[in-house]
Amino acid sequence: MPTKLGHILETQQFKDRKLLDELYFLADEMRLFDKENLGLLERYKCKRNALPCKPRRKILANVFYEPSTRTRFSFESAMRSLGGDVISTESAGIFSSAAKGESLPDSIRVIGGYADVIVLRHPEEGAAKMAARYSRVPVINAGDGPGQHPTQALLDRCTIKRERGTTDNLNVGMLGDLKNGRTVRSLTYLLAQEDNIRFHFISPQELKMRNDIIQYLEEHNISFEEVPGEALKDVARNLDVLYVTRIQKERFKNPEEYEKLKGCYVVDHNVIDVMPGDSIIMHPLPKIDEIAPEVDYDKRAAYFRQSDNGKYVRMALLKMILDGS
Amino acid sequence: MPTKLGHILETQQFKDRKLLDELYFLADEMRLFDKENLGLLERYKCKRNALPCKPRRKILANVFYEPSTRTRFSFESAMRSLGGDVISTESAGIFSSAAKGESLPDSIRVIGGYADVIVLRHPEEGAAKMAARYSRVPVINAGDGPGQHPTQALLDRCTIKRERGTTDNLNVGMLGDLKNGRTVRSLTYLLAQEDNIRFHFISPQELKMRNDIIQYLEEHNISFEEVPGEALKDVARNLDVLYVTRIQKERFKNPEEYEKLKGCYVVDHNVIDVMPGDSIIMHPLPKIDEIAPEVDYDKRAAYFRQSDNGKYVRMALLKMILDGS
Amino acid sequence: MPTKLGHILETQQFKDRKLLDELYFLADEMRLFDKENLGLLERYKCKRNALPCKPRRKILANVFYEPSTRTRFSFESAMRSLGGDVISTESAGIFSSAAKGESLPDSIRVIGGYADVIVLRHPEEGAAKMAARYSRVPVINAGDGPGQHPTQALLDRCTIKRERGTTDNLNVGMLGDLKNGRTVRSLTYLLAQEDNIRFHFISPQELKMRNDIIQYLEEHNISFEEVPGEALKDVARNLDVLYVTRIQKERFKNPEEYEKLKGCYVVDHNVIDVMPGDSIIMHPLPKIDEIAPEVDYDKRAAYFRQSDNGKYVRMALLKMILDGS
Repeated sequence: MPTKLGHILETQQFKDRKLLDELYFLADEMRLFDKENLGLLERYKCKRNALPCKPRRKILANVFYEPSTRTRFSFESAMRSLGGDVISTESAGIFSSAAKGESLPDSIRVIGGYADVIVLRHPEEGAAKMAARYSRVPVINAGDGPGQHPTQALLDRCTIKRERGTTDNLNVGMLGDLKNGRTVRSLTYLLAQEDNIRFHFISPQELKMRNDIIQYLEEHNISFEEVPGEALKDVARNLDVLYVTRIQKERFKNPEEYEKLKGCYVVDHNVIDVMPGDSIIMHPLPKIDEIAPEVDYDKRAAYFRQSDNGKYVRMALLKMILDGS
Repeated sequence: MPTKLGHILETQQFKDRKLLDELYFLADEMRLFDKENLGLLERYKCKRNALPCKPRRKILANVFYEPSTRTRFSFESAMRSLGGDVISTESAGIFSSAAKGESLPDSIRVIGGYADVIVLRHPEEGAAKMAARYSRVPVINAGDGPGQHPTQALLDRCTIKRERGTTDNLNVGMLGDLKNGRTVRSLTYLLAQEDNIRFHFISPQELKMRNDIIQYLEEHNISFEEVPGEALKDVARNLDVLYVTRIQKERFKNPEEYEKLKGCYVVDHNVIDVMPGDSIIMHPLPKIDEIAPEVDYDKRAAYFRQSDNGKYVRMALLKMILDGS
Repeated sequence: MPTKLGHILETQQFKDRKLLDELYFLADEMRLFDKENLGLLERYKCKRNALPCKPRRKILANVFYEPSTRTRFSFESAMRSLGGDVISTESAGIFSSAAKGESLPDSIRVIGGYADVIVLRHPEEGAAKMAARYSRVPVINAGDGPGQHPTQALLDRCTIKRERGTTDNLNVGMLGDLKNGRTVRSLTYLLAQEDNIRFHFISPQELKMRNDIIQYLEEHNISFEEVPGEALKDVARNLDVLYVTRIQKERFKNPEEYEKLKGCYVVDHNVIDVMPGDSIIMHPLPKIDEIAPEVDYDKRAAYFRQSDNGKYVRMALLKMILDGS
């Protein structure tokens, strides 16, 4: 039986490396389970991986106050591949009840009567924690505004582990909008636990990693450097992982500032030419033009595999939450 | 085998107390079926409760011309827990075909080829009846504008039965917008059949129960009184059931009138302090501020349990409609 | 084992009559599979028709950049009746990723990690072909703007086969907006392969069949005539199939022109009175007022049966795509 998980609200819950390893191995079993033409041993494993469905199939409720087809599809595909069912709303913001003035706690209390686990995407930071306080069933935070998106950080870490074989002793470059990027912030926090990690934060001056993370790294004596966008090629030579992010137009109040910054860095053949042969390029997606199209065809481009991993990590998490519940 | 039901269009179909009792007992079995860790006897019962799925799982089509995530989730969860499948639209109003000018009968004739039962929410009174005339498969009315919402009235009655053990000999208070509330109107009609029931209609002058119901009660010699909102506390002392409703902003043409009436009654600790220890407080939800937050923690607050019952009553109804069909 | 199909992008893929016959027979088996109270032989057939679900049920992703509840429901019902699962978006146009500027190829690459087959509805001609180039899983074109909608043409042909017993030696009338109607254009192309077919194109001058089709028919020595709307009754006397289409308001830039043309032809009792007793009237639906209500009750009105066939043809196609994949 896998370790039993409850609410999944923030990356900080996953400080235990044994738990992360278990999650990783379970996600890998899920990958086998999801494929066909398996050998005998794999078939045996697979049997253990579907959710028990007696007396009925478990139900996941996707409650999205902001649309996010990608994340919703990933959770739905994961839950269905486990043999579970899904009820889903893309527009809980106009949830007739919310529109009528119902509080989030009331909505969560009601939905808890229809589902075994709730996946919540909400524009306000802290919404998932508040929902968890009132919920009869486990709540998974699938993004609470500028807050957290813990399952993304977990799938990012699993991708590094799978692609590189380890999460220790790595040079990790973070490129782009480090100030507003929920993803890079969460992942930095999670990777800070690894042995002998060295961070390289590459960004325009305006989009530098914020002080809270910098301070955290300093306090814990974790190695990092901050370099401007122009230094990308120099830094890239020594990277094991280059994590690229999009400049998020929707976060800029001033459109001119966005126009100025957009396109100020591009990962193209000039950059990947100097990167080590066993390095990987990651991106939480969607990407726009911060990665040149030719990079898609390089085997070091790991972002579509990273996206696939999202399904398996979510299958593993759901299995750990729902099994025997 | 349960009694076979066809279309469910209005509360008046459920005048037979034996049928209501059967529905109640079946809903209770569904509750067991839905839970886990059952004993042997329960397991035996459960086996009888899933829908037959040979040669394929039955399909429910949710056709909502108005959004109502709560009602939709409740039906979806019910159908999936029975082992059925669901196809669903939240926005049949912009159903591409309706937008192109297709008539409701045509839409229903087409959807009947894709599903075994249709759940219809429509803004116009009488829409469900019209749909039923053209449908090859049973239609469930999930609200037709100011008309009916029969499954809500049925779950309300089941809640009273479950919480109080009986639906006879009760003092039932109806509080709030009795003029526009589809729910209280339907429930009054349904409860009027019980033995020795006494209604207490508590509302501001502007939102009194309409004449059609008053006349019906008088004709059938059913005991009732009408009191103003201020008398709430006095009346509450003797109530077995207090059914609270929201003042529905969306029904007021004049926003000033809404502002004047909103908040003119509140069920708070002052009210529940005088209510009997075995009384219950119900609400069709969503609630806003007509019930003070502290009431949620009183065991007499039955509205979240009432919402849960919605799933089981709908499972029972679907079972009665689809079994062997 | 049925013939293995890959992407379904355009009608031209179905030039092989043996393949069309196989599709037709498989769709007919699906019809049996979908019904209950089957005899022994039918039960045996049905067993062969569900999708294999080891180690898990297959997943279909409905990716609709334009809403089309009818087409979406038809695919969902087909996939679920096969024992598969569905993940679905009605509003991929505001797919958060697309809104953020993600390319269609990237979206398709990501969704390919969540599903076993993608059904794509997109406003731009050629979108399905482009998606297919990047997809790891088969893509079904469910309408690409003014381009194609091949599963509609296939279900139309299956309807003729089923209703008339053959697709050869037929007089086929096409009525209405032949200029803009994607459906009539595709079907003409598909039926042009049959033996001894004679087309009768009946339309107002402004909405005549375009030159590309006319030229194609001339080049292949296929018999056709073009007649004005007023000649409908004369032509109808000799028709085996009358395929009616709606004048699509949404395609007119000038609303006055639409007003002038709308209602310029109506299939009513005057028309069907002169049609042969074994002829059929088809329509891709939705219909508005181009078919008078009284026609619905004539047994030659095949359009609702045609709509039902859509489910079975899609089941057959999905079976041919997913079986053993």
